[in-house]
Amino acid sequence: MSSRGLPRSIHGDVPPPGLLEAFGAYERALMDDDLPALEDAFVDDGRALRGDAAGLLVGREQISAFRGTRGGVPARTVRQTHVRQLDPDHVVLVSVNEPLQGGRGLVTQVWRRCADARWRIAVAQVAGPERAADPTIWRQLGFPLIAPTGSGDLDGESVAVKDLFAVAGLPVGAGNPAYLAEAGPEHRHASAVRMLLDAGAEVRGIARTDEFAYSITGNNAHHGTPPNPRAPGRLSGGSSSGPAAAVAAGQASIGLGTDTAGSIRVPASYQGLWGLRSTRGAVNTRGLLPLARSFDAIGWLARTPDVLARAARVSLSMPSKIVTSGEYVLCPDLLELVDPSVRGAFTERLGTIPKPREIQGPDLEETFAAFRTVQAAEAWRTHGTWIREHPDALGPDVAARFAWAATVTADEEHSAREVLAEIRARLDTELQDGVLLLPATPTPAPSNRSEPAALDAVRTATISLTCLAAITGRPALSAPLLEAEGLPVGLSLVGPRGTDLDLVERAVALGPPGGRP
Amino acid sequence: MSSRGLPRSIHGDVPPPGLLEAFGAYERALMDDDLPALEDAFVDDGRALRGDAAGLLVGREQISAFRGTRGGVPARTVRQTHVRQLDPDHVVLVSVNEPLQGGRGLVTQVWRRCADARWRIAVAQVAGPERAADPTIWRQLGFPLIAPTGSGDLDGESVAVKDLFAVAGLPVGAGNPAYLAEAGPEHRHASAVRMLLDAGAEVRGIARTDEFAYSITGNNAHHGTPPNPRAPGRLSGGSSSGPAAAVAAGQASIGLGTDTAGSIRVPASYQGLWGLRSTRGAVNTRGLLPLARSFDAIGWLARTPDVLARAARVSLSMPSKIVTSGEYVLCPDLLELVDPSVRGAFTERLGTIPKPREIQGPDLEETFAAFRTVQAAEAWRTHGTWIREHPDALGPDVAARFAWAATVTADEEHSAREVLAEIRARLDTELQDGVLLLPATPTPAPSNRSEPAALDAVRTATISLTCLAAITGRPALSAPLLEAEGLPVGLSLVGPRGTDLDLVERAVALGPPGGRP
Repeated sequence: MSSRGLPRSIHGDVPPPGLLEAFGAYERALMDDDLPALEDAFVDDGRALRGDAAGLLVGREQISAFRGTRGGVPARTVRQTHVRQLDPDHVVLVSVNEPLQGGRGLVTQVWRRCADARWRIAVAQVAGPERAADPTIWRQLGFPLIAPTGSGDLDGESVAVKDLFAVAGLPVGAGNPAYLAEAGPEHRHASAVRMLLDAGAEVRGIARTDEFAYSITGNNAHHGTPPNPRAPGRLSGGSSSGPAAAVAAGQASIGLGTDTAGSIRVPASYQGLWGLRSTRGAVNTRGLLPLARSFDAIGWLARTPDVLARAARVSLSMPSKIVTSGEYVLCPDLLELVDPSVRGAFTERLGTIPKPREIQGPDLEETFAAFRTVQAAEAWRTHGTWIREHPDALGPDVAARFAWAATVTADEEHSAREVLAEIRARLDTELQDGVLLLPATPTPAPSNRSEPAALDAVRTATISLTCLAAITGRPALSAPLLEAEGLPVGLSLVGPRGTDLDLVERAVALGPPGGRP
Repeated sequence: MSSRGLPRSIHGDVPPPGLLEAFGAYERALMDDDLPALEDAFVDDGRALRGDAAGLLVGREQISAFRGTRGGVPARTVRQTHVRQLDPDHVVLVSVNEPLQGGRGLVTQVWRRCADARWRIAVAQVAGPERAADPTIWRQLGFPLIAPTGSGDLDGESVAVKDLFAVAGLPVGAGNPAYLAEAGPEHRHASAVRMLLDAGAEVRGIARTDEFAYSITGNNAHHGTPPNPRAPGRLSGGSSSGPAAAVAAGQASIGLGTDTAGSIRVPASYQGLWGLRSTRGAVNTRGLLPLARSFDAIGWLARTPDVLARAARVSLSMPSKIVTSGEYVLCPDLLELVDPSVRGAFTERLGTIPKPREIQGPDLEETFAAFRTVQAAEAWRTHGTWIREHPDALGPDVAARFAWAATVTADEEHSAREVLAEIRARLDTELQDGVLLLPATPTPAPSNRSEPAALDAVRTATISLTCLAAITGRPALSAPLLEAEGLPVGLSLVGPRGTDLDLVERAVALGPPGGRP
């Protein structure tokens, strides 16, 4: 038998016969990515457990599915092994390994002698070497990347800046490597960055975005999908995917993002964060790379409403509070787009709120179509020239979206604008100074193995909800106050223009979600 | 009993009586940093195991010592608990937690029912949320921080640049926050950075240094001590501490450093890396913040001799190979400064090499004193003005060193230079074109809890070895070919000026260390 994979320095109990051989065989199978051997190494009672920093897998089926997507483990040397025999059929084996690429790994395994007398793993926890940083979350970061330029309400806070905002000395990458490679360093900070720095926050780093912010999944073809710490194995949501994941993971306290069609509210909803899309025009957009100028709005993500409100307060150019009737408004038509589990959570939540006034919404298909058309026309106006000059630069999803955007005619855009003007006028009349309540997204975070067609359907339903704020220019909050299928979903509050801070206070007053601590 | 700390969602077996209460009490004790309760939560047979990314602790004593230095665990909610009863007295409990500051944690515990009928932890592996990055290794980093400017021998390699080299657009921090805060962005890359970029490497990030590179411990009073993956709980070595740790941890493939009195060779020795101090003057120092101009040399750290040689080859201005006699030279006097374990490993290694010619070295005390004096005078000339203007900016060790440097008189410097000139002439005569063999450091990495006096003694002995290359301007390699007390120690080869690459080839030819795979 090969000695490869066999441990060298053994401490503790004398290993029972066959155990070290099973351990060595498993190490070799890991390096060889021998899937059948790896599968057979775990107990087959549906109760095997395997955990690492990315999450916990339960049962051999989940474990094997994970292996199938990962590929093998880099070559490593087992430096130490500690053996603790618990009873004749159970042994704990803790091993320290050194991968050839550097660093150290630690593995704790509970082995069981099975009916066929072979040793198999019942429970394992695995730690590999720490990465430099998570490249799906960050493009660049530092301690700090940019130091504060003042002191105030944001002292001690750290900001993950979406890669659309100018940061002096560094280029804007917009989530696309080819664009980044051609971009020169910026000469000054974007206004939205500057205001946070002046208030005492530091810039922790430049965080990933979906390409040109023209997607809401969080899946970037070049950099991958950031993790969703609140829902492992599911999408982060985008396009402010990096700032959201950085905040959810505790790697920054404020995410600075943009929201054209939900790009703050969607990741906030999927990751259990507080996310605010500001009133259109209320935050200076100097230094922001636009997507669709009629709809682009700046906003923030945070783990707590307090931090969110402070970030908003120092950034809004109309911070004085606007007094409104405080009336809640409901548009039942919207709920038809929403998954039953989310609808149930939303309806239950409504039970704790004085009965909202009901309004009839616009035709949702017509609204979505018109919004999509104008967004596309503007996106093409912003980026079309560059994209035409770089035909292979974009990932398939965003490329397809821009390809469609290129086909929108002036007539189509003009008609769509007329439709939107009408919808906006009508919504303003219906909503008056009320606050529209709706789920921030029609589903919890979809699985990150979802088929493109399924994601497309989610996209349409989602934007049909989120575009109402974009069309009316109203501020929209996603507050982590719903839970569906055990996953976070945002409760969205869309208020009159200028009530950004009021929305946060209102959501706090609603109290925590039922069933959550 | 408080419900704080109790798990909410329990899967798998029905937990035996008392187990969940013990788990809940342990969670509460963690948050309260209740050291007696934490100690009592582990089995007391000297065999308890507790592992995390930083290393593995064996026995309650080690575990409690670790707790004493850490402080409590931030508040967290246990979201899921999986129970696997192995036998009446052993249960595995795997729990997923969510810290209030974001991210997820995973804990696997093997619990044992003890003789007093209480459940205690026999084995635990703990994973907290991933950090943004390790701030003891990195000041700033990115994917990439700086893209390659060419293609060649270093395609695909990533560089950790010591925070003494100019990187265009970013300030040089020199390991001191006050210095960094005043430094403006550099206009162009240091030559040594530029050459690596031109050869295809990217800059992964700017890595930590001991303050102004005036220390060899790796312990920075402001940023902490980088981990030593090959010797957890021990010093990383410095002053090229960040580049070395980044490479050892697998977070970069090349460390770009400087070596005035051992600042590459010491961390290479402590961390089992290949580290080369180049021939003085062989690498352009434009854009490098100096420490002591007579002795400063640029160099590299890598996990393999191949990468080291490639980084050196593209950077040396005298890359053509110099033919020498190839004779090895030994200076027995030097070994008196060396710990017995290292001396033993070195002597054993000598047994595999044709008997070296022996020379008599200079008086080591006199040499060290003269070296230290000139180094101090030059360091004060470089940084004295700034330090006088910032009397509280430095950590205590480096402050004391500079304070002493300020007292060196012109006469003392002049005399010391005369002594060094004599030593250099004599060493050149004795060494001729031979290659001096010696341990790179007189000890393996000292514990990171060493007393200052102990570290000072190590410093004196270490620099007494390392300064010979600095005084003669000869290139010096530290190759990971010795092992003492189970820890890596470098074998140092000091060759004639210009033989930088030859030293790497020679060390490779010596073969791997005895007892290492």
